[in-house]
Amino acid sequence: MTKMVYDLIVLGGGPGGYHGALQAASHNLKTLLIEKEKLGGVCLNEGCIPTKTLLQSAKVYHHALHSEDLGVTASNVEYHHEKVLKRKNEVSAQLRSGIRGQLKVSGVEVIEGYGQILRRQADGFLVSIGEEVVKGKRLLLATGASPVIPPIPGLKEAIGQGIALTSREILDIPHIPESLTIIGGGVIGLEMAEYFAKTGSRVTVIEMQNQIGGPIDSEISTTFLKILKQMGILFELNAKVQSIDHHQVTYEKQGKTFRVDSEYILVCTGRKPNIENLGIEAIGVETIKGCVSTDETGQTNIPNVYAVGDLNGKSMLAHTAYREAEVCIQTIIGKKEQMRYHTIPAVIYTTPEVAFVGETEESALAKGIDYAKVNLPLNYSGRYVVEQGDRNGFIKIVIDKKYNQIIGVHILGNYASEIIYGASMMLETEMRTSDIEQLVFPHPSVSEVIKDAIHQYIKIGG
Amino acid sequence: MTKMVYDLIVLGGGPGGYHGALQAASHNLKTLLIEKEKLGGVCLNEGCIPTKTLLQSAKVYHHALHSEDLGVTASNVEYHHEKVLKRKNEVSAQLRSGIRGQLKVSGVEVIEGYGQILRRQADGFLVSIGEEVVKGKRLLLATGASPVIPPIPGLKEAIGQGIALTSREILDIPHIPESLTIIGGGVIGLEMAEYFAKTGSRVTVIEMQNQIGGPIDSEISTTFLKILKQMGILFELNAKVQSIDHHQVTYEKQGKTFRVDSEYILVCTGRKPNIENLGIEAIGVETIKGCVSTDETGQTNIPNVYAVGDLNGKSMLAHTAYREAEVCIQTIIGKKEQMRYHTIPAVIYTTPEVAFVGETEESALAKGIDYAKVNLPLNYSGRYVVEQGDRNGFIKIVIDKKYNQIIGVHILGNYASEIIYGASMMLETEMRTSDIEQLVFPHPSVSEVIKDAIHQYIKIGG
Repeated sequence: MTKMVYDLIVLGGGPGGYHGALQAASHNLKTLLIEKEKLGGVCLNEGCIPTKTLLQSAKVYHHALHSEDLGVTASNVEYHHEKVLKRKNEVSAQLRSGIRGQLKVSGVEVIEGYGQILRRQADGFLVSIGEEVVKGKRLLLATGASPVIPPIPGLKEAIGQGIALTSREILDIPHIPESLTIIGGGVIGLEMAEYFAKTGSRVTVIEMQNQIGGPIDSEISTTFLKILKQMGILFELNAKVQSIDHHQVTYEKQGKTFRVDSEYILVCTGRKPNIENLGIEAIGVETIKGCVSTDETGQTNIPNVYAVGDLNGKSMLAHTAYREAEVCIQTIIGKKEQMRYHTIPAVIYTTPEVAFVGETEESALAKGIDYAKVNLPLNYSGRYVVEQGDRNGFIKIVIDKKYNQIIGVHILGNYASEIIYGASMMLETEMRTSDIEQLVFPHPSVSEVIKDAIHQYIKIGG
Repeated sequence: MTKMVYDLIVLGGGPGGYHGALQAASHNLKTLLIEKEKLGGVCLNEGCIPTKTLLQSAKVYHHALHSEDLGVTASNVEYHHEKVLKRKNEVSAQLRSGIRGQLKVSGVEVIEGYGQILRRQADGFLVSIGEEVVKGKRLLLATGASPVIPPIPGLKEAIGQGIALTSREILDIPHIPESLTIIGGGVIGLEMAEYFAKTGSRVTVIEMQNQIGGPIDSEISTTFLKILKQMGILFELNAKVQSIDHHQVTYEKQGKTFRVDSEYILVCTGRKPNIENLGIEAIGVETIKGCVSTDETGQTNIPNVYAVGDLNGKSMLAHTAYREAEVCIQTIIGKKEQMRYHTIPAVIYTTPEVAFVGETEESALAKGIDYAKVNLPLNYSGRYVVEQGDRNGFIKIVIDKKYNQIIGVHILGNYASEIIYGASMMLETEMRTSDIEQLVFPHPSVSEVIKDAIHQYIKIGG
């Protein structure tokens, strides 16, 4: 029986996979994309997009409740969670259909099924999808990651009882719970904490580290924590969950034992690459700590096998996966490109938003960089005063003193999410403070604070 | 009597003036700032900031009324215009006090009064402030602009009656009028049209040109017009106001005469530089068409006399004034810098926002540039779908085909205002499409559409 042979087989239809497939097809590679569940992957179906849909509704709800200062009052303000869930699903379906359309127009073949690598042949790799076997001259592995279920006694049982949930199931609970305990104060945990706190839950976050938000700049983390606490979210830092018994979480902090009861328990303790049952052992693809090893072009140790996105564990962000996929395809067509991870921005979509790129003060210190920093409140921006009006938001810029080069930008406050790409460009183009001084930012905008901060830095003798 | 002698006297305390004074002081120039009215100028007291305060309240009001789709309902949603006015004044006062504080800390002397140039001496310029006379080795003219009152029969009377208003007085009317006729569909006219339409007025805009928004890209203008019409705003383009009689405006369109009655009439037909009673004739400063002439460093024909902001009529935007002031001060201290007007962004703060930088298709054509363009709907962005959900928003990128260089970026839709500075950087750094391809934009964000558009352009063979 003649097998179908492709220039590229992509395993996984998330951001890295579908974007890679589109890029490949645009360079006339005969491309097959295999997706076991839903196009768009975690990002579109149970990650970035659904959470942003929820957060947008929560933001509008919050404004409707608390805009007396802005001259807007209302009564009987109600939040209809079921309607929000419906919209969330509609938005995901709309975007999935958009991706399906793009793939079709671009000539990418899509098979829904479970793709598994069988073996290597002289001229390619055999991949099974159920009964079917196809051959790819090259493979792009993009199977993503799944929530880690930590070995906490009682957790599995609580999951079985539908009390403990991962970031996947939490998005579909039918009502706003009276109370929610979140294990893990990283990005996903915080976005969910804000959502449920704003819509009426009593939320407790239990975090093992001494700061929230993972490895974000510690000054940003500290102020961010203060704001979230003011919102009514309870935090237990340096706290380790010991066991779960139905609705009760037992944790230890500073040698003492505490308990918290809540309607639901959300487990957000990280994500692990989906390398099981992928068949990489069959062709000898190397892994490190459960992640597929790749070089700076996305290639694994096996020629013609590439891995992008969460699967390589380098930077578990959808836009990293996009870029990695581009670099892989460029490499395949013989162009020299490579990843520059230090210019990849990241965003936490709470209100206030947090966005950052490049070195934190801590990472600069650890690398022995002779750095300076400048912090400026966002209410230097007239627009920020008009629209946000708080005193918490700030920008922090980390500067390599050798050439006065910008090496890190960290923003706490809206519109950080839409501003940060420009900061990323500053790192990409290796801008110095003197370059920023000559830029023109629109007034009034929050983006202006970048320049204001640089002025401040220069004024104090930087 | 010994006069006080300054290294620099700044006439006018708006964005160009106060920023110039701060910059000068930071370079240890002994600086005097003379302001006749309120620090912050039009921008802070009757322009950018107050209008954004109003628009923010209108936006929140609109959301409170129309968020059923997002799962948020409310009853008795009320808009309290008097409270919004109070907040507007408080915000301006807060920001004025911020500027005053910065000037004080920086060592800039501030005099409230009317500064007038008296004459030139060998070592400087004499300036009177009432009875007082001071001397400046250099002058920075930054007296701004005022609304043009066009010679329409009956307009002066209607102004006297308090029926016709300029952009200054409209910000303080005590209630939302039942109806409003706006003469002039430029940026200010449109922002006010949206504000009053959203808060309940029946608004008619009469514009002489065949498009709204002044010289903005015509495709953007066309879609923007469609959106504003859907909002309920009435537009009369190619229409010329002939006379005003109390509440009635008579205008001519395609040879026919029409009349519209409204509670208020807003005149937004442009602004003219404040060159009268400034005393520039006394020292021979040249003007062209009512604007003070300057070179690319901000210098007038008279050595050591500089003019920035609306006064030189080049680009009547606050951030242009800021940058011009910086270039003037750099020139004074002997650094070589100059204005690059083609990279200055501009924003219309309606919802949807409009923001743009660089060449429009029309201007590229007029300059004989061999250009290409790519348009992409903003709902390519998952975030846009989640937060805005309309099909109108789009981005348009104008590309010089010679080197595939980005020469113009135009965005219709939020968050255009906070994204555009990055597009401005792309022009500043002369980025090509291949440079944009290698950038990483956070996902999900609206800013991503820049890269999506470039991908689209390359796919179609650009």
